[in-house]
Amino acid sequence: MRTQGEELEDIKRRQCFIFVKDSSAVFIRYIVMESSVIDPVPTDLGRALCIITGASKGFGRSLAKQIAGLLKPGSVLLLVARSGDKLRELQADLAASDAGQKGLVIRCVTADLSQKGAVEETVKAAKQTNHLDIDRLVLINNAGSLGDVSRFAVSFTDPAEINSYLAFNVSSALSLTASLMQAFPKRSGLQRCVVNVSSLAALQPFPSWVLYCTGKAARDMMFRVLAEEEPELRVLNYAPGPLDTDMHMQARTLSGDMALRASLREGQLLTCEESAAKLVKLLLNDNFTSGVHLDFYDL
Amino acid sequence: MRTQGEELEDIKRRQCFIFVKDSSAVFIRYIVMESSVIDPVPTDLGRALCIITGASKGFGRSLAKQIAGLLKPGSVLLLVARSGDKLRELQADLAASDAGQKGLVIRCVTADLSQKGAVEETVKAAKQTNHLDIDRLVLINNAGSLGDVSRFAVSFTDPAEINSYLAFNVSSALSLTASLMQAFPKRSGLQRCVVNVSSLAALQPFPSWVLYCTGKAARDMMFRVLAEEEPELRVLNYAPGPLDTDMHMQARTLSGDMALRASLREGQLLTCEESAAKLVKLLLNDNFTSGVHLDFYDL
Repeated sequence: MRTQGEELEDIKRRQCFIFVKDSSAVFIRYIVMESSVIDPVPTDLGRALCIITGASKGFGRSLAKQIAGLLKPGSVLLLVARSGDKLRELQADLAASDAGQKGLVIRCVTADLSQKGAVEETVKAAKQTNHLDIDRLVLINNAGSLGDVSRFAVSFTDPAEINSYLAFNVSSALSLTASLMQAFPKRSGLQRCVVNVSSLAALQPFPSWVLYCTGKAARDMMFRVLAEEEPELRVLNYAPGPLDTDMHMQARTLSGDMALRASLREGQLLTCEESAAKLVKLLLNDNFTSGVHLDFYDL
Repeated sequence: MRTQGEELEDIKRRQCFIFVKDSSAVFIRYIVMESSVIDPVPTDLGRALCIITGASKGFGRSLAKQIAGLLKPGSVLLLVARSGDKLRELQADLAASDAGQKGLVIRCVTADLSQKGAVEETVKAAKQTNHLDIDRLVLINNAGSLGDVSRFAVSFTDPAEINSYLAFNVSSALSLTASLMQAFPKRSGLQRCVVNVSSLAALQPFPSWVLYCTGKAARDMMFRVLAEEEPELRVLNYAPGPLDTDMHMQARTLSGDMALRASLREGQLLTCEESAAKLVKLLLNDNFTSGVHLDFYDL
């Protein structure tokens, strides 16, 4: 939160001259344009606690790197993933970066979010940060899996397989989000934002992707409900586009639907960096409608 | 299936005269209009195996009663629900009805579909019918629960609670559908249809209904994928509208969001019978686009 003095200074700095012509004479007026209209994109995310799941590789890793550079000293980046080795590698990279040198704290939780206790462990690590010490909370629910795309829906006869998929891709995202919102409750001066890493598959059915489409549709709706319920919270369903990741490689080599497989092979891939940059820009601008589904290609 | 003789007779009966005029002369031609365009609504569902989950009360029970009257002798109605007492009561009613007297077989499975073994048990009961003895398979995935609507999304911190909800409302519908499609595979002369009892909540977020909305959105997408994958299968997401049921009573008395609660109290309720009748008409007409979401009020 800016003080009134800071706000006034900002307005003065931006005052600009415009010419207003009427039929009889030319007047020169000083116009103070409305501050919100001409606000430049903020250049940082303030003093924040940012939690990223699925942070060890791909899109999550790119996000972690970009966000690290936008956090003010004293901020905390909490990274969660199943692979401890890759997490520690990323932690070392970030600690050695400019941000790390300037006092960004990087914490890691090695956990499979579908397993009992993993959400609690992540929340415990987040709570090491006092909620009064930050002015922004950003939670990026990025962890997710493709499921077995080599098979069609009629092959999913085992409830345990579906339950396990939904536990990781749906339940953990809700329980983690809920737990963190409770641990860092609404208060004046704290901007809270939750991102769901979504997909076109949340809106459109793809043959041989029954688990993936179902999970992504479920997540989008879950976060839309959250947005309805918590008007102060900023909620975003971001579909990052077709990314050059292991997951996309699985999809284009294993999808049971051959036409889909071929179309994935022909399609242009985005780098994780360019898609992460677009999400980061959305977070900095912070003018999306809460609960909306935005796709890389919409922006 | 009609015999070729029946089909030919039908075509002859419908042949009609139309005048075709060109610039030089008037010709009269006999035109056989395409049979499907002018087919009257069929009055029965043929010799079918019809499986209805959540059949012991409310919408499922109404559907069972209406469908029973549309099944040809030798058909089987398989009813699944958690409450054995209510199922047996319905079974007795149906056995005493005209349909029961004319040879409709009514089987019951008392099972909680979220529990291990329940899907297998249902499939086992279905398999008592030889797939060559029927010309239609109708599966109505009606079982569902509202979840705890007294609380908001931020209270759902326990993954086990969410998992249990999704197991009943999402996983069991997919595994049951998949298992039955395998048990009754595509063959010439067998018309297969799967209905998902959906809701407006599959499309629209309602505050304090995070589990319900999430589950319904997940189910809709699941069945849309199924429709994409199996072009021969008829798949319908049917939203029955606000029904005068126990579930609606829970919703309007317990919903945590007071504005929603009030609007539910003010809204007009539909009887299960009138909504079931609309679904039955859709099944008889059988001209919906497979995978579509249709609401009572769209029809």
